[in-house]
Order: sequence, then C-alpha cells, then structure tokens
Amino acid sequence: MKKGERSKARILEATGHLLARQGYHGTGLAQIVKEADAPRGSLYFHFPGGKEEIAARALVEVGRRTRGELATALEGARSVGDALDALLGYFAEQLRASDFELGCPVATVALEAAATSAPVREAALEVYGAWQELATRFAHGVGLEGDAANDMGLAILSTIEGALLLARVQRSTEPLEASGRVLRKLLGV
Amino acid sequence: MKKGERSKARILEATGHLLARQGYHGTGLAQIVKEADAPRGSLYFHFPGGKEEIAARALVEVGRRTRGELATALEGARSVGDALDALLGYFAEQLRASDFELGCPVATVALEAAATSAPVREAALEVYGAWQELATRFAHGVGLEGDAANDMGLAILSTIEGALLLARVQRSTEPLEASGRVLRKLLGV
Repeated sequence: MKKGERSKARILEATGHLLARQGYHGTGLAQIVKEADAPRGSLYFHFPGGKEEIAARALVEVGRRTRGELATALEGARSVGDALDALLGYFAEQLRASDFELGCPVATVALEAAATSAPVREAALEVYGAWQELATRFAHGVGLEGDAANDMGLAILSTIEGALLLARVQRSTEPLEASGRVLRKLLGV
Repeated sequence: MKKGERSKARILEATGHLLARQGYHGTGLAQIVKEADAPRGSLYFHFPGGKEEIAARALVEVGRRTRGELATALEGARSVGDALDALLGYFAEQLRASDFELGCPVATVALEAAATSAPVREAALEVYGAWQELATRFAHGVGLEGDAANDMGLAILSTIEGALLLARVQRSTEPLEASGRVLRKLLGV
C-alpha cells in the first residue's frame, strides 16, 4: 500500500471508531485528523466532499468489515441455533469489551443524518441492505423461502438493531439474550 | 397554568420535537429558545442543569405522552392481532406524516448520549422501561407469563425499535410491516 493509501485507510478506520462511539455531530474533522495521525491536507485530498463524504465512506467500510466477521461466525456454526448464538454473541462481546459504548457501529449516525445528509443515509442504506441479505440467507437456512424469508430477514435485523440500542441504554446484554430466546422459539431451533 | 409553568411546558415540548428530529448534538439551546418562543432567562431558571437537564426532562415527557397514546390505541383493539396492528400503525402513521423524519422520539438521543451523559441515559432508561412494561402486558394478553412474558416484551420492544430505525433509513414503513407479519406468526394471532 502506498503512503497516500495508508493515510486514507487510517482516516476511514479512525472515523469509523469515532462515529460508532460519538455519532456524527459529536465527531469533528480535527478529532479525525488527530485520531488517524494523518496530515490534515490528506483528508481534503482524499475526501473532497468533506465530513459527509468521510462519514459515508467510513460507514460503508465498517459495515463491510462487520458483515465479513458475522459471515465468518455464521459459517463456523454447526446448527441454526449455534448460528443464532454466534450472531448475538458477536455483538454481546463487543458491548462488553467496550463497556457498552459500542453497539451497532452504524445506527447512531444513521438516525442523526437520515433526514439531513443524503450521502450518509445512502451509506447506511447500503450497509443495512447487505446485513439484511445476510439475515435473509439465515432465514433460508431454516427452510423459509420467498416473501416469508424476506420478512424473517428484515424482522431478525430489526430485532438485533433494537436489542443493540436497548443494550447500550440498559448497559446490559439482556435485550440481546431475551431476543435470542424468542428468536429460537420463533425459528424452532 | 401560571405563565412560568407555561413557558416551562413550551420549552419541554419544543425540545422533544427538536431532539426527535435532530438528535442531541444537533440541537442547540438558542434553537430551543426560539422554537419555544420563551425568554432565554426562563430556560436557565427552570432548568439550572442546562442542556442535559432539559434534554432528559424532554425525553421523559415525550416518552410519557407516547406511552399514553400507545396504551389508548391498545385499549381500543378488539383482538391481539388488532392491538399489534394498532401499535405498529401508530408509528407507521408518524413516519409517513413526518416524511420519515420522526421514528422513535427517544432513540437518536439515547444512542448519542448513552455513553456521555448520565442524566440523558437515565431518562432513556426510564422511558424504555415504561414501554417495555407495556409490551410485557401485551405478552400477558396472549397468555404468556413470568420469564416468557418478560422475554417476549423485551423482544417486541427491540423489534419495533429496530424497525423504526430501518424505516427512517429506508424511507419506507416496510420494516414495520414485515416485523408485524413475523410477530403475528410468533404470537399465533
């Protein structure tokens, strides 16, 4: 990787971390530059669209990484029940390791900017679309097809997103665990 | 209501609206004063704790109002299926009427401030606790008891919160509708 590419990657990674913890309005460009240890000029060079562009790109990046980690966790599972535990366990571990600062790395920014920034909303749309596709594939794994699988994928994603929000507020993984027990019953696994 | 009480109420109402649409960091005191048409001095008089205190009180207020409206919608339903439709329909209507700017009136602020403001996090905790209690009561209505009812209440609240988040990003009520179909299946109604 060339030097310019390295600072670009560092900027996106630092932005992803800051957005996940502080949200969009709580994160400034100066803090991104500092956290990424990148020259301020490289920020404007790589992202001429400014904060909106950096945030949108960082969301897509963190979404892709998370999806990869979730897919790996799912592939290692030996049953549908195991797969569900792996999915929920992935997020529970992140919550605990971050002292409940890190839930869904996209949700805060998605809510803040959904109505005010088209690039950020589109990035969130792309990330959630990819995750929803993963959840729908999971629904196929329990024998659902067509509309029933699509509904189930969307409902599973909704449940996990809501549980992650409540987990941060309650500072507890209980919402994930309760949702897991209910989903197991729903899926018969 | 005395004049002072009226401006206090107006400040809380304006803050609730602004927080729901713009979040915590996106809303400034100057905007609250302007929106509430209240003297700036009354803001400091009624809320010596500043923005954190105003936000926390506004969340509790909007949470209480929403809970009341949801309880009314639930009481009017003639079956559990109707009740579920009323619950989801309430939020779908708000989303459509606000051009998808208004989902859960608490979620954005809860995520932004969960890790940084104890008063705001505690207010969100109180609101979600009251809503969870309502969802658990709903679970009792389909014959669930004890831990199973608690799990179901928490899972229903999680699903609705996540669906509201996705609905704002997708600018569509489809996540609420898909979740509704899956919840109906889950509850056998």
